Amino acid sequence: MVRVGVQADVPEGLLEFFPKDGVELVRIPKGLQEKVEVEFWVLPFNRPEAEAQMPFVEGVKVMQSGLAGIDWVLPWKREGVTLCDGRGIHDVSTSEWVLTAILASLKWLPVYGKAQAEAKWVGDWKMRSPFLSEETHTRGRYRVLNEELWSKTVLIVGYGSIGAATERRLKAFDAKVIRVARSARTEQEVHAFTELDDLLPQADVVVLLLPLTAETTGMFGRERLEKLKFGALLVNAARGPIVVTEDLMAVLAEGKIRAALDVTDPEPLPEGHPLWSAPNCLITPHIAGLTPNFMERAYALIGKNIERYLKGEPLENTVGEAGY
Amino acid sequence: MVRVGVQADVPEGLLEFFPKDGVELVRIPKGLQEKVEVEFWVLPFNRPEAEAQMPFVEGVKVMQSGLAGIDWVLPWKREGVTLCDGRGIHDVSTSEWVLTAILASLKWLPVYGKAQAEAKWVGDWKMRSPFLSEETHTRGRYRVLNEELWSKTVLIVGYGSIGAATERRLKAFDAKVIRVARSARTEQEVHAFTELDDLLPQADVVVLLLPLTAETTGMFGRERLEKLKFGALLVNAARGPIVVTEDLMAVLAEGKIRAALDVTDPEPLPEGHPLWSAPNCLITPHIAGLTPNFMERAYALIGKNIERYLKGEPLENTVGEAGY
Repeated sequence: MVRVGVQADVPEGLLEFFPKDGVELVRIPKGLQEKVEVEFWVLPFNRPEAEAQMPFVEGVKVMQSGLAGIDWVLPWKREGVTLCDGRGIHDVSTSEWVLTAILASLKWLPVYGKAQAEAKWVGDWKMRSPFLSEETHTRGRYRVLNEELWSKTVLIVGYGSIGAATERRLKAFDAKVIRVARSARTEQEVHAFTELDDLLPQADVVVLLLPLTAETTGMFGRERLEKLKFGALLVNAARGPIVVTEDLMAVLAEGKIRAALDVTDPEPLPEGHPLWSAPNCLITPHIAGLTPNFMERAYALIGKNIERYLKGEPLENTVGEAGY
Repeated sequence: MVRVGVQADVPEGLLEFFPKDGVELVRIPKGLQEKVEVEFWVLPFNRPEAEAQMPFVEGVKVMQSGLAGIDWVLPWKREGVTLCDGRGIHDVSTSEWVLTAILASLKWLPVYGKAQAEAKWVGDWKMRSPFLSEETHTRGRYRVLNEELWSKTVLIVGYGSIGAATERRLKAFDAKVIRVARSARTEQEVHAFTELDDLLPQADVVVLLLPLTAETTGMFGRERLEKLKFGALLVNAARGPIVVTEDLMAVLAEGKIRAALDVTDPEPLPEGHPLWSAPNCLITPHIAGLTPNFMERAYALIGKNIERYLKGEPLENTVGEAGY
C-alpha cells in the first residue's frame, strides 16, 4: 500500500485519474500542524503552503508538483527525495498565452483598449507607431493601423515541450521559428545558449520559456536586450528574474523594443512600480497556466506517475540537479 | 494601349507590380475636377473620394477595388462596368485579427489591461468570470484566470478565402470549425445559411466574415443572438450592419454573451455611444486589414488583373449582382 498525500480540498472528481488498487489516500488539511506519513506527496499549488507543510510530512520518497517551474521547491526540498514537475501540462495554456501576447502586441491592442476606454474611434486618426518607418505608414494615403505575424522571425529561448506547442501554433501563421536551448540538439535544429547573442539580432519576436536556474537568472540584462532588433518584441512566459527589470525598463523607456510579460521581478508587481507604466509593455499577472482545463491535465499526469511508482517503473518529469 | 487610372499618390514602388507593355498610366489627382479617360480604373481606398471621382472618369470598362467588401461601390457603380474586388488580399491580415480577437477575449486581456492601467496585480485576487461556473473557478483553491481556445467549437459564418485562412490558424489550436456560407457546398462540408439557427447553439465562438448585402443586413438581431450559447463569443470582422447594434447591446447588458468587433454600426462609432462601454465587448476601429504588408499584396493582385485584361483573359475577383 502506497500512501499518497493530496490536499484536503482537491475535489473527488480529479482523484478519479489516480489508480485505485494499492493506493491509500491521505488528505492533507490546509495549515497542517501534525505529522503525517506520506510516501508520494502531491504538493499544493500554493507555494508558501507547500513549504509550510514540508516539516510535517514524513517518509516522503516522491514530491510531485503540478507546475512546470519548480525553482521554488529547490530551496527547501529534502535531500534524497525525488522531485517531479508538471512538464507538459502547461503546453496548451502557455503556448496559447504566448500567441495571445504576440498577436495583441502586433495588433496594437493596448492602444485600442485605451481608445475604447475613452470611447474614441482612432481608426481615422493619424496614428503612428514609433517602430514603423514614416514610409511604411504613408504609402499613398493608406493608413497602417496594425502589424502582422506573417513571415516574422520568432526566436524561442528555452525550447522544450511548451516551445514545441508554441512553434506549432506559430507555423500556422507562417512565422519562422529559431530554437534555442541550453544544449544544442542537432536532430531538431536546436541552437545552444552559446549562440544566443548571434541569433538575437535576427528576431522580430523573442519568447522566453526557460526554467529559472542560476544560469538563467539575469540572463537578459542591458547588454543582451540591446542586441535585439529595433522594435523587436520580448515575450516572457517563464520567470520574472530571467530578465533584469531595471534594464528592461531602460530599453523600453528609450523606445528600442517592446515587451509582453506574464511574469515579473518582483512578483507580484507592487502597486506603483514603474514597470506597470513602461511604454510598449503589456503585463498580465502570471495567468498563462491558469485555465479551467489545467486541473484535469495535471491530475491525469500525476495519476500516471503514481501508477508508474506502484509498478516500480521510472517516473516521468523527474527534476535533476540543474533544476529542470 | 490600355489606359490604367491610379491615384497620384501611389508610390512608384507599388506600380512595379503592373505590366509595362501595353499600359499607359494615368495619374488621378486627389479632388479630381476634370474629365479623364481611363479604361481600367484602380479605385482609391478612400470611399468618399472614389465616389467623388466617378463622374469625371470616362470610358471605364473595369473598376478594381483593393478592398474585400465592395458594398460601398454598388450604389454608384456605373451600369455595364465590370467591378473587381480585393478578395484574397485580406486573408492574412483579417484571419490574424480574428485569432487575436478570440484569444484576447478568452485570455481576459481587457480585464488585465484595465488592471495594468491601474497598476494592480489582480492575479492573486478572487477574480470571477460571469461565464464560468463557481465549480470551475474553485477546484481546490486553484484559481482560474483565463480560458482556452483548445477544443472550442468555432462557427465561421461566411466561409470564403478569409474563412479558410482563419480555419487553418484555428486548427493549430485544436479548435473545431463549423463552416457556413450562403449556399451549402458538400465537397467542403459547408452548411447553408438555412442551417444557421440549428448550428448557433453548438458554437463557443461565432465569427462573422460575410459580405454586406440585402440578405446579410440585420442578419444577427435579437432572436438569432439569443440562440448563442451562454458565454459564447461573437466576433465581427465583416461589416457593422450585419449585427443589429441595439440588440447586441441588449444581450451584452444581460450578460448572455461576449463580443469582439472590428466593425460597428454606426461607423465610426461616435464618442459617447453606449456600445463603447457595453460589458464584455472588445472594440477595435476597423483596423483588421490595415497592415504594412497589405499594399504589396493589393498591387500584386491588381497587376495580375491588368495583365489578364491586356491578354483578354477572364478577370479574377469579379463581383456579381448579389454583391460579392
